[in-house]
Amino acid sequence: MKPFQIGAVLFPGFELLDVFGPLELFAMLDDRVSITMLAQTAGEVVSAQGPRAIADASLADAARYDLILVPGGIGTRKAVQDERLIAQLISHSEAVRYVTSVCTGASLLARAGLLDDREATTNKLVFDWVTTQGPRVRWVRRARWVVDGKFWTSSGVTAGMDVALAIIQHAFGREAAEDSARKAEYVWNEDSTHDPFAS
Amino acid sequence: MKPFQIGAVLFPGFELLDVFGPLELFAMLDDRVSITMLAQTAGEVVSAQGPRAIADASLADAARYDLILVPGGIGTRKAVQDERLIAQLISHSEAVRYVTSVCTGASLLARAGLLDDREATTNKLVFDWVTTQGPRVRWVRRARWVVDGKFWTSSGVTAGMDVALAIIQHAFGREAAEDSARKAEYVWNEDSTHDPFAS
Repeated sequence: MKPFQIGAVLFPGFELLDVFGPLELFAMLDDRVSITMLAQTAGEVVSAQGPRAIADASLADAARYDLILVPGGIGTRKAVQDERLIAQLISHSEAVRYVTSVCTGASLLARAGLLDDREATTNKLVFDWVTTQGPRVRWVRRARWVVDGKFWTSSGVTAGMDVALAIIQHAFGREAAEDSARKAEYVWNEDSTHDPFAS
Repeated sequence: MKPFQIGAVLFPGFELLDVFGPLELFAMLDDRVSITMLAQTAGEVVSAQGPRAIADASLADAARYDLILVPGGIGTRKAVQDERLIAQLISHSEAVRYVTSVCTGASLLARAGLLDDREATTNKLVFDWVTTQGPRVRWVRRARWVVDGKFWTSSGVTAGMDVALAIIQHAFGREAAEDSARKAEYVWNEDSTHDPFAS
């Protein structure tokens, strides 16, 4: 069986854990998944925190994924104005089964119009900025993550690990999600409505 | 004031989240910390999960750090036999205030003899392999993390985020740790003795 194809989007100023938290948990599925790091162009991308990661391929390539992972980070402030990136996110979102955002990554999906008339959530500390990027989105202020159709949007940073496990459960079954969490010794916050960071 | 210097060690087959979980939380301290990615040689390093990160500097450089972060991952199986790497870890450990391992990263510190006659912990699924690397270590089977002198060893993968917050509390105070956790929307498992993964 062909592995579940994950495309993780990088852009300058991406948040480290928004990307590598979910990828760690997906990778616990071993050869049932395949991970490709994507960016405008293949090569080095510097994170918001400083460490650099490498994009394997360009978002312009026509490869098809089962899931697109869109992180947040301070770099979203510039990225929302990058029309080429936004167009590429729209294009890739058409083909995939899951579009996932972590933290302020929702600002990119919102700016693309992909969340219009849908429920979605995002980081709580910069909730007011993100929501201006999608005035027609039905933003949910109290949620660890929100599912609407193929769009799985999560709250700040570490909520990305919780939504990743929810997607693993959805795509591979309950046991697979529990197994991924156990291998990472992660205490899964599995109630999407429980949000201790919404004040 | 000079920022708190963190050196994060990469080797082929390092575990993604062991590195980027703790770094995310340390980076929430903004300009109070400085992060340098280290490896045998500067440049690309492939993780256990596939994605590649970039080492900024060589472990052979004489730069001094306040903290050395040693991740685990399947690559530790080869790395424990790498005498040059082990010697470099010993050398860097002398100068630092904190030596931190995540998951099977403890195998490298154990192999280096750095944990001899000290208490330490590691990943629970491969506990038996790691402990053979340090027969004189007083291994603690039930612990989220263990502190003995400057050595802060943590359990599997996500336990690295909990020990990172404990170190932030130790070095910068309680408020700083709570602030890092809140910004990452992370539910801190702050009791080092509570270990739901020790069976």
